[in-house]
Amino acid sequence: MNTPQNKQILLRQRPEGTLRESDFTLVTRPARELRDGECLARNLYFSLDAGFRKWMNAGADDNYLTAMELGAPVQSIVLGRIEASRHPDYPVGSLVLGRSSWEEFSVFDGSDFLQKLDHDGSFPLHEYVATLGPTGMTAYFGLMDIGRPRTGDTVLVSAAGGAVGSVVGQIARILGCRTIGITSSEDKCRWLVEELGYDAAINHRAPGGLAAGIREHLPDGFDIYFDNVGGPMLDQAVQHMKLGARVVLCGAIADYDQNDRESGVFHMWQFIVKRASAAGFMFSDYVERYPEAVQALSKWLAEGRLKTVVDIREGIEQTPKAFCDMLEGKSRGKCIVRL
Amino acid sequence: MNTPQNKQILLRQRPEGTLRESDFTLVTRPARELRDGECLARNLYFSLDAGFRKWMNAGADDNYLTAMELGAPVQSIVLGRIEASRHPDYPVGSLVLGRSSWEEFSVFDGSDFLQKLDHDGSFPLHEYVATLGPTGMTAYFGLMDIGRPRTGDTVLVSAAGGAVGSVVGQIARILGCRTIGITSSEDKCRWLVEELGYDAAINHRAPGGLAAGIREHLPDGFDIYFDNVGGPMLDQAVQHMKLGARVVLCGAIADYDQNDRESGVFHMWQFIVKRASAAGFMFSDYVERYPEAVQALSKWLAEGRLKTVVDIREGIEQTPKAFCDMLEGKSRGKCIVRL
Repeated sequence: MNTPQNKQILLRQRPEGTLRESDFTLVTRPARELRDGECLARNLYFSLDAGFRKWMNAGADDNYLTAMELGAPVQSIVLGRIEASRHPDYPVGSLVLGRSSWEEFSVFDGSDFLQKLDHDGSFPLHEYVATLGPTGMTAYFGLMDIGRPRTGDTVLVSAAGGAVGSVVGQIARILGCRTIGITSSEDKCRWLVEELGYDAAINHRAPGGLAAGIREHLPDGFDIYFDNVGGPMLDQAVQHMKLGARVVLCGAIADYDQNDRESGVFHMWQFIVKRASAAGFMFSDYVERYPEAVQALSKWLAEGRLKTVVDIREGIEQTPKAFCDMLEGKSRGKCIVRL
Repeated sequence: MNTPQNKQILLRQRPEGTLRESDFTLVTRPARELRDGECLARNLYFSLDAGFRKWMNAGADDNYLTAMELGAPVQSIVLGRIEASRHPDYPVGSLVLGRSSWEEFSVFDGSDFLQKLDHDGSFPLHEYVATLGPTGMTAYFGLMDIGRPRTGDTVLVSAAGGAVGSVVGQIARILGCRTIGITSSEDKCRWLVEELGYDAAINHRAPGGLAAGIREHLPDGFDIYFDNVGGPMLDQAVQHMKLGARVVLCGAIADYDQNDRESGVFHMWQFIVKRASAAGFMFSDYVERYPEAVQALSKWLAEGRLKTVVDIREGIEQTPKAFCDMLEGKSRGKCIVRL
């Protein structure tokens, strides 16, 4: 195979506050030659995950990833098909899910997150970046392991119509919990209740904001708060914990634009008097247990008890806009780019 | 028995910021007659616990206690001997530990926290408000249940020479952990290492503050942070969590004077990338398991592996000053008033 031309989207500049399309730029470069132990995938889908916004900031190094480099392709989870291989585990034709970047062709050596997919055609391929992929794994293990839901628990979900939130709310309902979603418009509130089966929904932009919504819909507080947002919403939520409440720290969209200093949790004391806990996690820690989640989620999907909501954008050029739209809450469910 | 005169210390005014002795006043009133189901204790010791500072603020109602009333006796854990009884479970002569107030005589009906003590003389009586009382129970269950120490873990303790901290540091060392204490002077740092067996100590008031001390003594971060302080120190600490770290939320002295809005945790994101957790607790939730803790702590005390550090003040009149001194870090170990 000749070395193909590779369209890539680079991080052109560090975002200042709100992320903009102009922070990115598209280039075309030849893909590089494979070395022994490497394989080349033609990417079919980009999984847009809000968490990656964080690593666009300078100095955002942590145990999970290092800050993205300026002028380098933007990191992302991608789904691709191997087109050339010098790696015995990933022969040509394999479908893979891996951490790479916004580009048409990615080289993998298996040292970073890379998973071979068994796609038997039961579900559309994009499901493997959605409910049967990182999003579903995040929702499932966060809710089950950190949230530990019991029948009858009250479960509050922020960004409730987002990629992870839309799955969390549905799983919690299937498990017999009372589910309340937080979102950003009346329109989305109706959709959460009518389409996703939430028992109630709170528009945090309504007069009175989140506090009024919580007083109305969960006057006794929550057992589980699945937090996709962080920031002031988290601080407000922890003031409404029941005894023994569990806070699942999954995402912190509110903090991503702000380099940490703008918003904090001022009510840590509540964790003491409510004997409550908060814990963070990463879906990639649960690789060994994926089959458990995939089995449960596949069954619920097949039975029609769980719906995957996707917002699929077409073409690599649409990626920056799609990512910005997602962060601004303009997309519903899982935002995916199809190449 | 005639109704005795009862000295009581009342909350005279809501503290504004730092608590002062003048926020309290001493009065003498007759103790009231007992009704059926009540008993009267002559108090021998007051346990001074920083957490009660919180409930001196207006509106500090929560699941644990309601805000103390102005003009009412100041709430406290007390140790007393029953002098009159119309309650079958608490005959005259019983030693009891209960939640009551700063007063010479307390009436109990058993509906609130009240525990009969088996005092066989093996340990001095004040030990039952210290290591074998609420303080020791707090240290033991917080460390064991929330911290879950493993041999070789690095354990960071704030207010490390305080009532709870001084016990936590010693238990962690007995369990084979590396222990680092945070305190407020060079003098106390030496004492933590030389007398309490901490592996190292950090004076957070030294130039460079806590951050410099953490870089020097635990460059790889901690597995467990036993937090007695809250506020900015908690926010700094969570920036130094190891993967899978546990934060034990035990106290929040830093927040007590400030009605919540002055200091926050701005680095909640760290809990996600470090897959870390934080949880609060109250010693009183573990009443069923006290024997487990008492057995372990008694053994370590008897073997001389664990020392109880006490600062005993004499006379009910000394209580306000003792409590203020404790909050300002002027006392070492457990601060107790002997009546």
